[in-house]
Amino acid sequence: MDDPGFRRLKDCRIAIVGVGLMGGSLGLDLRGQCAERVGVARSPRTLAAAQAQGMIDRSADFDTAVEDCDFIILATSPRTILTQLRALAQKPALGSVPKVVLDLGSTKTDIVAAMDALPAHFDPVGGHPMCGKEVSGVAAAEAGLYRGHTFILTPLPRTSAAALSLAQELVTRVGAKPLLLRAERQDALAAQISHLPYVAAVALMRTAQAAGDDQIWEVAASGFRDTSRLAASDLTMMLDILLTNREAVLRALASYRAECEQLTRLIEAGDEADLRAALAPAQAKRSELFQQPKNRQP
Amino acid sequence: MDDPGFRRLKDCRIAIVGVGLMGGSLGLDLRGQCAERVGVARSPRTLAAAQAQGMIDRSADFDTAVEDCDFIILATSPRTILTQLRALAQKPALGSVPKVVLDLGSTKTDIVAAMDALPAHFDPVGGHPMCGKEVSGVAAAEAGLYRGHTFILTPLPRTSAAALSLAQELVTRVGAKPLLLRAERQDALAAQISHLPYVAAVALMRTAQAAGDDQIWEVAASGFRDTSRLAASDLTMMLDILLTNREAVLRALASYRAECEQLTRLIEAGDEADLRAALAPAQAKRSELFQQPKNRQP
Repeated sequence: MDDPGFRRLKDCRIAIVGVGLMGGSLGLDLRGQCAERVGVARSPRTLAAAQAQGMIDRSADFDTAVEDCDFIILATSPRTILTQLRALAQKPALGSVPKVVLDLGSTKTDIVAAMDALPAHFDPVGGHPMCGKEVSGVAAAEAGLYRGHTFILTPLPRTSAAALSLAQELVTRVGAKPLLLRAERQDALAAQISHLPYVAAVALMRTAQAAGDDQIWEVAASGFRDTSRLAASDLTMMLDILLTNREAVLRALASYRAECEQLTRLIEAGDEADLRAALAPAQAKRSELFQQPKNRQP
Repeated sequence: MDDPGFRRLKDCRIAIVGVGLMGGSLGLDLRGQCAERVGVARSPRTLAAAQAQGMIDRSADFDTAVEDCDFIILATSPRTILTQLRALAQKPALGSVPKVVLDLGSTKTDIVAAMDALPAHFDPVGGHPMCGKEVSGVAAAEAGLYRGHTFILTPLPRTSAAALSLAQELVTRVGAKPLLLRAERQDALAAQISHLPYVAAVALMRTAQAAGDDQIWEVAASGFRDTSRLAASDLTMMLDILLTNREAVLRALASYRAECEQLTRLIEAGDEADLRAALAPAQAKRSELFQQPKNRQP
């Protein structure tokens, strides 16, 4: 038998704080994998829907869920997670084993800093599952959302091996692949690969809207559909992301704007060989990526 | 019976010049809808594949196909179409009824100007089907590619009603919806809704590549996959598009770069209300678009 300090997922009572797309989907995938799933949400209707659809075993308020559970998963948007971590920091110790705290926020530097301020009876680790959809809320939750996706974990220096091991077990149980990164590095990578594409998609929508010509939507085909998809992302989530990962997003945007400027100059110059040389490496790399079944459209 | 001047598709011998994604798919959808489909391509292997897969009834060289057919469809990339139109302009009259010439190029101003220089025994009309994939070639061709998509037609002042009617019949028979636009207007709209998203996708790829950190690809999820998809588009096609629609693309890029700059300033300022006000209309419009089944992922 493992050391009792190494808690196993199947023995854990898990608080899922925020039962939307991410939390609700997680709940579905954790069915039968843990002792109990306790849902927390502002809206009683959300909790009723989550329970009716088997995402949670019961609901509770934040304080009760924290008291009752061994493993607390904060599945809200980044700034709400920060607020919840500040609330956790005020809580007295309950029991002898520290409660493991994992969040699912897309930005990590600020969250990990707030986690570091938790008292010793909490054992925190940052998380960022690299999946999601442009729809949000409990109605969008689905079983298998995490399957095949990368799930970044950002342990703190204070994170215990037991907490990391439990988080890794959770990631594996829902079919995702854990990837350990420092918080700052995760934020820089996420800014370029996730947050920048959102801003680029919004800029595309705004450009088309600024044209002030409604016929433009009649000629929008699959290329525009896909390139602009992220512009439909949940606003509260994206505001939280942009405002908590502001500096990394601004660095990514500066680099992106320089690329746009360079491509503009090449199109202006109209030299075919130069333009081809700029487009070809992007074409080669994008064709090479996303070949594996896991990355294919469902 | 209609006036014999109004040729019906079922009586036409159709030359499909270029049997790649667009031409090959068109051939599949025209099976049984016309008197004969004559394929033209540089590569004998392409022609053999097209014939084996039922995309064409027979193959011929360009001159023979033009002589034999009533309806000539140029399904190559824009600059090749321009070359082929210059070749057509040298051809003497053959028979008493002008041959209808339709192209499938993504840019129209230059092509329509070259069409206008054709002798009177050709009856030209510009076309741009708003579908496609980021893969190209005969192997990518598929039945039903055009179904449910907008198919822009750009008639010239000289285009006869008979030619426009035949082109519209073809569009309808392959399940697409004809949309009549002036060439310049089509090019401005296509620059914003189709060519700009390609440049934006390339810039995203180049930004991620410039980071010089291979771990970035491990964290790339569906958001990056979709936003960057167009960067994998066929290079020859995209070079032709950018170079034949240069001014409209540059205008779209100027507008896009201004939007990127404005979003950058708002993120820098970090005022939540201002940022939300800039993101919200894009979110609302993008959520409203692409609701119909025809626009859903296959």
